Amino acid sequence: MEIIKSPGEMQERSLQLKRQGKKIGLVPTMGFFHEGHLSLMRIARERCDAVVVSNFVNPTQFAPTEDLDAYPRDFERDCRLAEKIPVDIMFNPEKQNMYPEGFRTHVEVEGWGKKLCGASRPIHFRGVTTVVLKLFNLVMPDAAVFGWKDAQQFLILKRMVKDLDLPIEMIGGEIVREEGGLAMSSRNKYLSPEERREALVLSRSLGEAREMIEKQGIKDCGILKNHIRKQIDKTLHGKTDYVEIISLETLEPLEEVKKGDTLIALAAFFGRARLIDNVRC
Amino acid sequence: MEIIKSPGEMQERSLQLKRQGKKIGLVPTMGFFHEGHLSLMRIARERCDAVVVSNFVNPTQFAPTEDLDAYPRDFERDCRLAEKIPVDIMFNPEKQNMYPEGFRTHVEVEGWGKKLCGASRPIHFRGVTTVVLKLFNLVMPDAAVFGWKDAQQFLILKRMVKDLDLPIEMIGGEIVREEGGLAMSSRNKYLSPEERREALVLSRSLGEAREMIEKQGIKDCGILKNHIRKQIDKTLHGKTDYVEIISLETLEPLEEVKKGDTLIALAAFFGRARLIDNVRC
Repeated sequence: MEIIKSPGEMQERSLQLKRQGKKIGLVPTMGFFHEGHLSLMRIARERCDAVVVSNFVNPTQFAPTEDLDAYPRDFERDCRLAEKIPVDIMFNPEKQNMYPEGFRTHVEVEGWGKKLCGASRPIHFRGVTTVVLKLFNLVMPDAAVFGWKDAQQFLILKRMVKDLDLPIEMIGGEIVREEGGLAMSSRNKYLSPEERREALVLSRSLGEAREMIEKQGIKDCGILKNHIRKQIDKTLHGKTDYVEIISLETLEPLEEVKKGDTLIALAAFFGRARLIDNVRC
Repeated sequence: MEIIKSPGEMQERSLQLKRQGKKIGLVPTMGFFHEGHLSLMRIARERCDAVVVSNFVNPTQFAPTEDLDAYPRDFERDCRLAEKIPVDIMFNPEKQNMYPEGFRTHVEVEGWGKKLCGASRPIHFRGVTTVVLKLFNLVMPDAAVFGWKDAQQFLILKRMVKDLDLPIEMIGGEIVREEGGLAMSSRNKYLSPEERREALVLSRSLGEAREMIEKQGIKDCGILKNHIRKQIDKTLHGKTDYVEIISLETLEPLEEVKKGDTLIALAAFFGRARLIDNVRC
């Protein structure tokens, strides 16, 4: 596996791959790989000739109050795991090369970055769209793979790709869960054993909501959201940030579940970890 | 000359040209060609294998109060003029295909779009950067040619290209002037004969400022700006919008002329025409 640190070198390498007619697949990550990341790399491996994984903890998507410095990193372990997929290129730029002095350009998917997670993380998605656009321009992938775990992120990035006419196929990989159902996340590392046990409520309550829809025919989003919120807030350490039921197409809140176009998404704090999870119906 | 209307077809055609190893040059325009546009096309012709000219009056860079509907158009004449260069492809998309329902993505070069022309046209440069990024993604040029007449636009777009890591060479073409010195502009069409005569003050006063710098050694930007402003405002129909002297590097206002890094830029109204002009020192 090649490790490339320089953005210019990454772009040169990609141009070379394209001249050879290779189909490039990109998996953008912030590193500290778990089975969720690896599953996305496997999708890229299956569909593309050359697999590039970017490994960059992007500072511009963290607010000053957030966990940028604490965000877990283990580059050597990441390399060992990626090599087994196998990944062809690990792109691991320095932040001063991604954001040199004078940098001042941002891309935004208007409105969509302020909903759901954006309500408590107002600059987050602007940071995500900007860095992903830079990664797209550097790596020039034919396909890019993102996890459905960050559903809002995936929907915003798909919108950006469509609006900006980028010739990139956007592929969503399903959420990978630990035993018990907790969605894999680098931030699960912050959980105490007790918080981790309690955090199972997230996937469980989402599953219950899905059952209420599918088995009991409940469509009222108010009832479903209340159910989930109650389950979370009755734990000892859990605190709901939001529970929302929205259209996958418009990101607008739904009053009634719309079969095939519904996302139930939530975020909750357990201790210092802010966890997200979702299901599509 | 090929005329392509569909964005998807344009992108397909560019991918084909790239597979053939052709170097693509793009000249983005809003049509109604004058010698200024043609000079940019000649630069692209000299440096590239395939010359694409986009011809699109971009609605998102006009405020509701501005001259979008009145903006002069003559597509057939444009085609005849471009064919003589010769241009290979004229890309002439419909606005509903550039901005289909649900479009909501914007790119912005923070701060720089609010200075100079941006003070009186606050949404203008956001519209410009967004449409040019779309054109870049559709045409995938190796080089793009813009006129120095819209100096702020050119500097903002160069910053965007650098910040977003786009592998595109940005080329500036010098201002082409009518006899008497008036910078060529599609908006000169709005001028009455008397306004047109008076508007010569723009290039003349810029030339005087340059002489004051070069021959008299004047460096104080206040003195230079005052001189220009006075010349414009003493005409019968002219009204200064702004006169600014800024760094080409940072776009910050200068107190003293900095040899090689100075732009003197102005905008003024003559009747219903808002005209711009500039010199670099």
